[in-house]
Amino acid sequence: MPVNLSAPVAQDLHPVAGVRIGVAEAGVRKAGRKDLTVFLLDEGASVAGVFTQNRFCAAPVQVCREHLASGSAIRAMVVNTGNANAGTGADGLARARATCRALAEQLGLQPAQVLPFSTGVIMEQLPVERIQAGLPAALADAQPQHWARAAEGIMTTDTLPKAFSTQLQIGGATVSITGISKGAGMIRPNMATMLGFLATDACIAPELLQPLVRELADQSFNRVTIDGDTSTNDSFVLMATQRAGNAPVTSLDSEQGHQLKAALLQVAQQLAQAIVRDGEGATKFITVRVEGGRTGEECRQVAYAIAHSPLVKTAFFASDPNLGRILAAVGYAGIQDLDQALIDLYLDDVHVAVQGGRNPAYREEDGQRVMQQSEITVRVVLGRGEAAETVWTCDLSHDYVTINADYRS
Amino acid sequence: MPVNLSAPVAQDLHPVAGVRIGVAEAGVRKAGRKDLTVFLLDEGASVAGVFTQNRFCAAPVQVCREHLASGSAIRAMVVNTGNANAGTGADGLARARATCRALAEQLGLQPAQVLPFSTGVIMEQLPVERIQAGLPAALADAQPQHWARAAEGIMTTDTLPKAFSTQLQIGGATVSITGISKGAGMIRPNMATMLGFLATDACIAPELLQPLVRELADQSFNRVTIDGDTSTNDSFVLMATQRAGNAPVTSLDSEQGHQLKAALLQVAQQLAQAIVRDGEGATKFITVRVEGGRTGEECRQVAYAIAHSPLVKTAFFASDPNLGRILAAVGYAGIQDLDQALIDLYLDDVHVAVQGGRNPAYREEDGQRVMQQSEITVRVVLGRGEAAETVWTCDLSHDYVTINADYRS
Repeated sequence: MPVNLSAPVAQDLHPVAGVRIGVAEAGVRKAGRKDLTVFLLDEGASVAGVFTQNRFCAAPVQVCREHLASGSAIRAMVVNTGNANAGTGADGLARARATCRALAEQLGLQPAQVLPFSTGVIMEQLPVERIQAGLPAALADAQPQHWARAAEGIMTTDTLPKAFSTQLQIGGATVSITGISKGAGMIRPNMATMLGFLATDACIAPELLQPLVRELADQSFNRVTIDGDTSTNDSFVLMATQRAGNAPVTSLDSEQGHQLKAALLQVAQQLAQAIVRDGEGATKFITVRVEGGRTGEECRQVAYAIAHSPLVKTAFFASDPNLGRILAAVGYAGIQDLDQALIDLYLDDVHVAVQGGRNPAYREEDGQRVMQQSEITVRVVLGRGEAAETVWTCDLSHDYVTINADYRS
Repeated sequence: MPVNLSAPVAQDLHPVAGVRIGVAEAGVRKAGRKDLTVFLLDEGASVAGVFTQNRFCAAPVQVCREHLASGSAIRAMVVNTGNANAGTGADGLARARATCRALAEQLGLQPAQVLPFSTGVIMEQLPVERIQAGLPAALADAQPQHWARAAEGIMTTDTLPKAFSTQLQIGGATVSITGISKGAGMIRPNMATMLGFLATDACIAPELLQPLVRELADQSFNRVTIDGDTSTNDSFVLMATQRAGNAPVTSLDSEQGHQLKAALLQVAQQLAQAIVRDGEGATKFITVRVEGGRTGEECRQVAYAIAHSPLVKTAFFASDPNLGRILAAVGYAGIQDLDQALIDLYLDDVHVAVQGGRNPAYREEDGQRVMQQSEITVRVVLGRGEAAETVWTCDLSHDYVTINADYRS
């Protein structure tokens, strides 16, 4: 059961002018599943993306990077589930290219104007002929209001589709922002999440898109973890269709740039947090906040040590305030000159540890009360500096083991 | 159920001349448990130790370091379970010192001649008065042949006591080596294991003991992981009582030094591997071997990424040859210039991946066959150099979650 997350209502998702979406059943791995999604972009759209830092990155990730680097105007994207096309060598690369070629032919585009995305099982060859055969149905299905369908079309072990949307006024024009994401396991994005697509019709200078998508990823998808396993296929794409009619945003530091970025970040964080809320077997949504570090990097290091500790995560699952496990994780996070005598620990409003030891005023029943909540904030104060960082994660339950001992069957 | 591990037979464990061991029930956390163990060393013994690198190291670890650094002749050690005396601040340090003082008084020693060890729950104050009250019974119990009792006395979530022993001839004299260890969770030793005690009656130059214990730890306890959680209390101690009558070993590089080191390492590795075999919820014993790296360090980095991946570990639990998860872990291990096209993967004798892609000759049923074994070797060839390293770990099962969602109750 996802933690405080429900399926999106299709009518709540604003269409983004210049984006049409179609979904089909291609039978990539199993029959009867919506497993093929296409995004069609009108001429004039700008696209930027960030991708996994996993050195075993999937073939489609390699092709996305090439096509974006080539400077071609991206006009379509194709997403399949059921097969990640990762760990597939040179043949896998050829199949990712064949997918782009097939869609480009149908649309009268160059292959480099198409971005491919795959997610699913690793180390099996992509059945490109099934994808090819499914494309006409996906294209026939293409509609601006199909975001909720797309959120479904890209799911794998997700229990719920994930989509969020907002609108804002920029320079007198209404700008829409809508995004979808997927992922529930193998989640510790390093540059992006398993798959995330965010679109806006805002007019914005195309050269701002790449720094913008990087900043958005860094403050959303790059701050969540489920199991510490960085996927081979993480991809996060930002599309701007330039259709809202606002005076173009020409700087991210202008007032309008700030407004747009804040609205995009809100949706990106909702999408990223939705992945954690739907984490495999998750029963709790945990915010880990580390303050008082010398640098943001060391705060993240400590936050991830806590967020990845199987012992901390099972204690959250059990609602057991076995909080020494958190201190142990702080201690092994790798900060060589950390002084335990300066460290304070809070669980929501409960002050658990003072100067590295148990707070004399701490009562087990206070810790117990917080641990029973479905949303918990762990706050660690390092007492070394002014930096602070936040990471979102979930607990480790029996269902995580069940799901992952079962995934391929 | 531990993986191919049974309880030691008391008669198989050679007493080590100059070491006596006593065990008692002190009721540290719960009544009716053997939770207090003392080691008594005759005059002339040499002792060296290595301890956790966790910055939140426990009070007893801090006191051990002090007492060893003071150059005092160590004559006694006291070990309690039920309470780790970690995350306990200045008060915890005072309680660890009080424990040493209490034992020293009973034995007519200086407190600095006593080493304290604690293991159990973190962030609760050590009931030093109970330990004090239990010491007379432990001292009355002291016998050279009590190694098996000691292995029991230091257990926490272990399902079996762990003890190994060997004898060898050095320079015409019979040298005995016996050791015990404990630990089943919070296991990713960094310099040592949760608790390991290794004794020999060999005559060896005392100044060789510290480099020797470090080398032994590095090739045994520092090569195992269960959950990646480095404990606050890891301690590994080597005692040499100098009583075997062999011509003293004065160099580790001499023939006799090599012999002694090899025999000690054999026992240390058995003790370390026993911890993995008895890992919380373990159903399989996994050897991860990484070859063809540029440095030993990068081989270890890759090996630990595999050994810590929850996805890899659940796949082993399920006997599911979902081997792409291993490639994904290799990819995110953090080697920036890793070339996936050079990587081969083997599961025991089965050649799974060639040059970063699925081996065309690989058949799922071959992977399946190996995955069903209780002992499995994963071998990754990086194709970058000559270095190789081995790490031992176990799978991640429902019982790991059950045990750790339950530990304190």
